Amino acid sequence: MPDGRLLIGNKRYSSWSLRGWLAVHLAGLDVEEVLIPFVRNAGGGSTPAIAAATPAGLVPYLEHKGARVWESLAIAEYCAEQAPGLWPEDRAARAVARSVSAEMATGFRGLRQAMWFNAGRDFAGLGRTPEALADIARIERIWAECLAAHGGPFLFGARFGLADAIYAPVVGRFLTWQPEVSATTRAYMAAVRAHPLVDRWYREAQAEPDSWLLAGYETPPGA
Amino acid sequence: MPDGRLLIGNKRYSSWSLRGWLAVHLAGLDVEEVLIPFVRNAGGGSTPAIAAATPAGLVPYLEHKGARVWESLAIAEYCAEQAPGLWPEDRAARAVARSVSAEMATGFRGLRQAMWFNAGRDFAGLGRTPEALADIARIERIWAECLAAHGGPFLFGARFGLADAIYAPVVGRFLTWQPEVSATTRAYMAAVRAHPLVDRWYREAQAEPDSWLLAGYETPPGA
Ligand SMILES: N[C@@H](CCC(=O)N[C@@H](CS)C(=O)NCC(=O)O)C(=O)O
Ligand SMILES: N[C@@H](CCC(=O)N[C@@H](CS)C(=O)NCC(=O)O)C(=O)O
Repeated sequence: MPDGRLLIGNKRYSSWSLRGWLAVHLAGLDVEEVLIPFVRNAGGGSTPAIAAATPAGLVPYLEHKGARVWESLAIAEYCAEQAPGLWPEDRAARAVARSVSAEMATGFRGLRQAMWFNAGRDFAGLGRTPEALADIARIERIWAECLAAHGGPFLFGARFGLADAIYAPVVGRFLTWQPEVSATTRAYMAAVRAHPLVDRWYREAQAEPDSWLLAGYETPPGA
Repeated sequence: MPDGRLLIGNKRYSSWSLRGWLAVHLAGLDVEEVLIPFVRNAGGGSTPAIAAATPAGLVPYLEHKGARVWESLAIAEYCAEQAPGLWPEDRAARAVARSVSAEMATGFRGLRQAMWFNAGRDFAGLGRTPEALADIARIERIWAECLAAHGGPFLFGARFGLADAIYAPVVGRFLTWQPEVSATTRAYMAAVRAHPLVDRWYREAQAEPDSWLLAGYETPPGA
């Protein structure tokens, strides 16, 4: 009997699910994975089965030993309490790790709107709105500062931690849309993509049935 | 000598600053308060002095004993580490407190756009866009569930904690715009407004000079 369950959306599309899923796996929680594929109808709106099964109508959503946790950042903090070492040990580094994670979770709307997450496509060169490019510049600055301060290959040193989990879907967007980025950024992207959990997510995304594809996320902008 | 400084915006306008300021005061950190009034120029964009002084170009921003912390949620977590008891003690209650706090920090854009924070105005009855009303319905549900589960008067019981700090500016918006809300919501609003720290914020907001007023935040929608 697992200790609970983690609700996620399609691995191909759900950038937030990837964050929660990584945190839960990094912490080694023993939970059943429940995947609810997104549906989109003409009127817009979100997936009825997700709305019905979760407190805020969004995935990821974790139930674990009687606790109910939603929102990627809250799931990250819950996982950090369950498994030591997922945030940096140093007080000041931990403060920065949480700051850059919250900055991602609350911001970067320009990037999120122009360059959506799709683990199975190559939209190289597209999506370069001014708002997306401004967000990308800030993200590159965050990564460069963290990597320089802690020596890489991950944001806070040798271990893939919660800040990396929060930024992993951003790496995914960069892989799909291929904005022009620095060598430092490319090295970090390669390290994240090669992490066994990220790689597993991508492999499982490829294996999803074609019937789950949504035209809105498969058609490049301007096409 | 204080242990650092907290950068905030105008008390009249800066809902995010109020969150960080409450967390810092609840934790009893000894930091100097540095208030940078917002400026708005025709081309839009944010306040140059804030952009220059903070990592993400936003307030609140905390420097404490060598640590640099930005983003309200990260400041809340930093304060929780410095002073025990700001999150609920029970694991499952703490998970919900973090979930509803993150839900606020990442969402409710409909409310935030239609009913901005202004600690000195009465815009009763205005701003009722469908998106704002949907957000208000969800917020009332969150508050009612937390208050019922923990007995009030605050979201997780007798003590004003970090979840209350995160929702205090929402209470402020409701006081200014006066959407139709339940008796439970009104009782919670009264409890938050009467908290000595919230009351101090409002008094200090009233005392700000008229030269800091910004027309865009003083003119009701449709006027
Ligand atoms: N702030 C939330 C965002 C979660 C979110 O937006 N999830 C999207 C999918 S990535 C969702 O569940 N949408 C419902 C739908 O598309 O049907 C978090 O951090 O977890
Ligand atoms: N996600 C941030 C939001 C902070 C934010 O948006 N701050 C606004 C003021 S409330 C700001 O600094 N704006 C700069 C300006 O208006 O000049 C947080 O949680 O702290």
